[in-house]
Amino acid sequence: MKEIILTGDRPTGKLHLGHYVGSLKNRVKLQDHHDQYILIADVQALTDNADNPQKVRNNILELLLDYLSVGIDSKKTTICIQSMIPAIAELTIFYLNLVSVARLERNPTIKQEIKVRKFNGGIPAGFLTYPISQAADITAFGADLVPVGEDQSPMIEQTCEIVRKFNSYYGQTLKEPKIILSNTPRLIGTDGKNKMSKSLGNTIYLSDSPDEVEKKVMKMFTDLIILI
Amino acid sequence: MKEIILTGDRPTGKLHLGHYVGSLKNRVKLQDHHDQYILIADVQALTDNADNPQKVRNNILELLLDYLSVGIDSKKTTICIQSMIPAIAELTIFYLNLVSVARLERNPTIKQEIKVRKFNGGIPAGFLTYPISQAADITAFGADLVPVGEDQSPMIEQTCEIVRKFNSYYGQTLKEPKIILSNTPRLIGTDGKNKMSKSLGNTIYLSDSPDEVEKKVMKMFTDLIILI
Repeated sequence: MKEIILTGDRPTGKLHLGHYVGSLKNRVKLQDHHDQYILIADVQALTDNADNPQKVRNNILELLLDYLSVGIDSKKTTICIQSMIPAIAELTIFYLNLVSVARLERNPTIKQEIKVRKFNGGIPAGFLTYPISQAADITAFGADLVPVGEDQSPMIEQTCEIVRKFNSYYGQTLKEPKIILSNTPRLIGTDGKNKMSKSLGNTIYLSDSPDEVEKKVMKMFTDLIILI
Repeated sequence: MKEIILTGDRPTGKLHLGHYVGSLKNRVKLQDHHDQYILIADVQALTDNADNPQKVRNNILELLLDYLSVGIDSKKTTICIQSMIPAIAELTIFYLNLVSVARLERNPTIKQEIKVRKFNGGIPAGFLTYPISQAADITAFGADLVPVGEDQSPMIEQTCEIVRKFNSYYGQTLKEPKIILSNTPRLIGTDGKNKMSKSLGNTIYLSDSPDEVEKKVMKMFTDLIILI
């Protein structure tokens, strides 16, 4: 039996070359020998975009097109939309009882992301609790493997804690996922200085036209062009 | 069109005369002129009984029998089980984004209940967030009216806040519920001193046999018997 992989993205923007190098390329490889699921995490995207659902809605299709364009094969990989699976919401509600508020507040990834986001009006409860909804995603699919960057490993630890507590209360039901750590260094952006990132405006999008790509590449330093 | 009422109980124990005087009697009256829903809140009961689902499961049927025995009429009142309505879980997840953690921590009802419960291992996230799941219950049924005791009114204020925020983001969709305040004084228990309460062992259960009721009543002070 093939091992189950769960991976996914929040539909908050188009994917760029940094995503390709960091994860998409790997997914294209993994789909050949694994039972791979990609979750378009629109419900999770709302945790910090509750006031802009249209942005999330628009980006679902963008994300899907980006996946198909790089070679994610819908015959090998199952792509699904989080909001269309009510069982994930139900699992999240049950898991909320298994994690203390203090434990959530100690999560280093959450701490860091709260710092970056500077929420006006306080931290939404949905944002603080999103590691719990990630645990629901992972266990809903019975994932054996979850490909993550190093900064995301506390999320998987949280999932494993929930799995152990759930099993201790309700009998051996869920399995603990393992991490596939991405060892790809961050891709440098077109500015040659920082990692490629939408917010820094130094990206080449997968959906950029040849003209746009040329324009962006021609602005780069010569030695960087040679590296590419 | 009849006004919609949502009411309900957590299935954590059998109902006693205190419940009858405080709420059930009223429900029997209200069902004649309202569109009444009673929610058996098993999912919410798990927020502080996650380690004992069997207790919750057993009490669902007890609760239902107690309802029917006092005259709740299934032709007039719709009785439903919370865990069988996934849409409530979905709504809860969406509402979690509309309430800050600090706002939840300021809720006086929650503060009081946390004090009483003395959670080992910290406050479960599901317990802190249960006012949000109550808002999901109330709005899922489109309730106009919610009968509550005075100590529960902060919960309805929280629901109204969520309704206003939801409508401001997503357009006029939900309605704010109104409270029906119970003006029944608390029923005194068989000890003649404290309010009737399971934890004080001074209750007469609706499901007590005539023999049990007689035994309990015969232990009461004479003047109290006259009062009854």
